Amino acid sequence: MTPDAPRRRGRPSLRSADGTPAARDRILAAAREEFSARGYDKTSIRRIAQAAGVDPALVHHYFGTKDEIFAAAVDLSLAFPAKELPALLADGIDGVGERVARLFLGFWEDPRTRGPVLAVVRSALTHEAARDIMRGFVTRNLLERIAAQVPVPDPTLRAELAASQLIGVAMLRYVLELEPLASADPETIVATVAPTLQRYLTDPEAVPAAGA
Amino acid sequence: MTPDAPRRRGRPSLRSADGTPAARDRILAAAREEFSARGYDKTSIRRIAQAAGVDPALVHHYFGTKDEIFAAAVDLSLAFPAKELPALLADGIDGVGERVARLFLGFWEDPRTRGPVLAVVRSALTHEAARDIMRGFVTRNLLERIAAQVPVPDPTLRAELAASQLIGVAMLRYVLELEPLASADPETIVATVAPTLQRYLTDPEAVPAAGA
Repeated sequence: MTPDAPRRRGRPSLRSADGTPAARDRILAAAREEFSARGYDKTSIRRIAQAAGVDPALVHHYFGTKDEIFAAAVDLSLAFPAKELPALLADGIDGVGERVARLFLGFWEDPRTRGPVLAVVRSALTHEAARDIMRGFVTRNLLERIAAQVPVPDPTLRAELAASQLIGVAMLRYVLELEPLASADPETIVATVAPTLQRYLTDPEAVPAAGA
Repeated sequence: MTPDAPRRRGRPSLRSADGTPAARDRILAAAREEFSARGYDKTSIRRIAQAAGVDPALVHHYFGTKDEIFAAAVDLSLAFPAKELPALLADGIDGVGERVARLFLGFWEDPRTRGPVLAVVRSALTHEAARDIMRGFVTRNLLERIAAQVPVPDPTLRAELAASQLIGVAMLRYVLELEPLASADPETIVATVAPTLQRYLTDPEAVPAAGA
């Protein structure tokens, strides 16, 4: 994906209309940068095209609308934790709260993934497309699947409560950068929130009967 | 404060340059509406003045900069929970997690306070002025004072962890409106998050030594 990477021949789908290889990848990378830095509102197809060095029509050609390129830019970065799910549950539900907390924080501590996630969090507050992506990723794909492995009622509500703790930490530590939370050792935070997640996700007594 | 309220004579500070009483209150009310509905970015002094039916110069006269009117608009609504603090601690630290959770949710459930708080949360993500207000209110004024009453280390970190749980719930329930969390009975949420807050604020074992 670097500019020096050898051109692959015989795979025209990786070659763009402007003759350079992997223009689609460059567009995606530019979109991630722009959305992360500026948020959803201030990012335009035209800016993304400019940053990627392509014609705006090419961005539309590959991705369609701004919502669609946003989803693609974010999905690319959010895809990997879904792969981690089997490992999270491989040893059963004991300690799953700690493993989820460590996975989530690791995700934010990594500069490659922090930007795109930050873009989603910022954008989710004002845009339905971003909200749906966040909902789909954090609750449906990850936490709800964990809660569903446990014989407890209300797995979706439990997943959302666990997500609320994680997203709250992310907000205060990475977005608002409140001290001392922003500089605390990640393992301190893991150790502190893990019992909370474990309780929400697996303790039958943690959530009173819904609507009670 | 209603348009029908009798004019108070002999108190010129409550009368504005345009001759109507309490223009300052009208400006504040308009500012709260505008910031809540549009967020910090899209709200201008000119819009606030228009909504309040006054000249923009009068807004500047009373409040100064946009940051300052934002702070005033929000402070007005955030002032009351500070008064609740003695009651939260009157019965000691047993059950303080539940009382804090109930106070916080009540605040969001009340339409008079939800808008301004929403404006802060939305704006805090992108604006330092809003971030400072949120920090000052949620952690310094409320939770940190509670943690300081308990002989535990790291009261500020504990306050921020408690705040992270509350703000995360607010994000998912009131901003992103994830179901079933958005429609769950408030008392279900209080019962679920209260032990989390209690642990963060008062359990000596909850937070490992900072930097460990």
